[in-house]
Amino acid sequence: MKIILDGMGGDNAPEAIVEGAAMASRLVNHEIIIVGDEKRIREELSKHKSDHRKISLAHASEAITSEDAPVRAVRSKKDSSMVVGLNMLRDGKGDVFISGGNTGALMAGGLFILGRVQGIDRPAIASAYPIMGQGISLLVDAGANAECKPNNLLEFATMGSIYMEKVLKVKSPTVGLVNIGTEEGKGTTVIKAAHELLSKSDINFIGNVEAREIPKGACDVIVCDGFVGNVILKLTEGLAWNIFKLIRAKFTKGATAKMGAVLLGGKMKELRKEVDYSEYGGAPILGLKKPVVKMHGSSGANGVKNTILKAIPFAEENVVSKIQNSVVEIEEILISEQL
Amino acid sequence: MKIILDGMGGDNAPEAIVEGAAMASRLVNHEIIIVGDEKRIREELSKHKSDHRKISLAHASEAITSEDAPVRAVRSKKDSSMVVGLNMLRDGKGDVFISGGNTGALMAGGLFILGRVQGIDRPAIASAYPIMGQGISLLVDAGANAECKPNNLLEFATMGSIYMEKVLKVKSPTVGLVNIGTEEGKGTTVIKAAHELLSKSDINFIGNVEAREIPKGACDVIVCDGFVGNVILKLTEGLAWNIFKLIRAKFTKGATAKMGAVLLGGKMKELRKEVDYSEYGGAPILGLKKPVVKMHGSSGANGVKNTILKAIPFAEENVVSKIQNSVVEIEEILISEQL
Repeated sequence: MKIILDGMGGDNAPEAIVEGAAMASRLVNHEIIIVGDEKRIREELSKHKSDHRKISLAHASEAITSEDAPVRAVRSKKDSSMVVGLNMLRDGKGDVFISGGNTGALMAGGLFILGRVQGIDRPAIASAYPIMGQGISLLVDAGANAECKPNNLLEFATMGSIYMEKVLKVKSPTVGLVNIGTEEGKGTTVIKAAHELLSKSDINFIGNVEAREIPKGACDVIVCDGFVGNVILKLTEGLAWNIFKLIRAKFTKGATAKMGAVLLGGKMKELRKEVDYSEYGGAPILGLKKPVVKMHGSSGANGVKNTILKAIPFAEENVVSKIQNSVVEIEEILISEQL
Repeated sequence: MKIILDGMGGDNAPEAIVEGAAMASRLVNHEIIIVGDEKRIREELSKHKSDHRKISLAHASEAITSEDAPVRAVRSKKDSSMVVGLNMLRDGKGDVFISGGNTGALMAGGLFILGRVQGIDRPAIASAYPIMGQGISLLVDAGANAECKPNNLLEFATMGSIYMEKVLKVKSPTVGLVNIGTEEGKGTTVIKAAHELLSKSDINFIGNVEAREIPKGACDVIVCDGFVGNVILKLTEGLAWNIFKLIRAKFTKGATAKMGAVLLGGKMKELRKEVDYSEYGGAPILGLKKPVVKMHGSSGANGVKNTILKAIPFAEENVVSKIQNSVVEIEEILISEQL
């Protein structure tokens, strides 16, 4: 298998990307193609121990930045690492594409260059949501679609279920719909209609899930629109950061300050790691014709390595063709609604 | 001033309600009227030290429960403590009404019995959002209106600003709109239109606020629809709970377990208190013709006492008439949009 890696995307590119690729090259039996400024990448590569038989380079003279307007960037920066990488994926020169770059551009590029699975209205980003000490849930949509129709939420639920089962190996994953109450009939018009669609589906739908239950691991697949998904992910990040800051302040003050400092030294790092979703191996974009993974922009080398490892089953397990096959079921539910 | 208190609303009613009222009676120079089952309330009252000159009772034979369907409950349980209390407020037998009961019923009762301020389309619940170690922000809407139009968000911002300034004594409070990015032009159609309306208003609008920044105290008034507001409050509650659980597990394990247990003993209680928004004195319902406060259903006596203390300036500062006066400005902005 060939993994195409955007060497220039993300806050720590190309350094962390190349280092992560070097780490991964010693763990996997697949080829990793790093796309980007060949000279810089070669330079970085020379700093790390890698299995050089498994790493190759593809030159791209430009890079899309986080400030670029997504659609314009994809249209105009034809020789950017992101566009070159997506073209390679489309042309069969690799099996999966990973980028830590501009999320909007990656979505736009995915839609323009690869296209969506026929019958899927809205591809979505599926992000890992860390359930502290107990693995992860999968949050779909994590921010690609701020505005959603009920059928989009059914698509997210179906695609998330497939990914969870095939890649994360959870049998018959439970699916919950984020809502403001557990009872049926709660929420907006869109959410109520989505609840009805999900109830008719073959997925393991457990009903509405209140936000309070999400961090406790309420379900395997958390379904919501991209606005709410974005709020959930970012609030979790900000709140965890704030609580840790508060703990540090409280425990290193007063009579027990010394004791506190000793304890915190070891434990805080562990704690931080448990809520850091960038550690969990990137977020697949589901609903495109080929597997694309959005890596967290601030990923370090370890995050890059984890993303590469997780991208392999995403491609190997034929998630895309399984999503393709699920479209018939989705369409049958939608049609039965109109009868 | 007379404070009307629903003696039968909430998980710990009437015990915690009566105890909280007893505590408050020794701190304030106002009359507290407890509405509910007179016999039971008198019984509870006898258990606590109170200033009996400041407490009076009003009998109501029924109670609305959290399971009751809101509109039906308000229509049919005419002699419930909530309906009786709201009628007393309407008839000038008191200046503010506090209830820890069924939120939907309190909203419905407020609308039917008191009515909305003329020109306010949607009354909203304004909840305290604890910024750990630094006081609170005010979150509007905290869950009353799952679906909102742009003008509703303008109303929430205006009413929240007034409450923050008059009751919480924050001069020219900053107002942020919850969005999925800080740049203008982000978000849903409704959010984009709301951004434009808020920009034209006289309030101190600082623009979009990402969920990540909310726990850090991004702004004084956090504006969002009730769906997102509910997600923010409940996720905060659930996540804080989960992190505390994790801390306890980590710090009381292994070689440093004893040290950890000693440290946690004192600090955890403080930590919990800082994120417990029920401690912060209830959530005013803004946009009704008279002041109504929704108390957290699980409030203990201390929460009840705090809610009573905070309800006093809500009534005394004439927040309702200030909201009434702001309607002209809101309408001018809306009309200028249509020209």
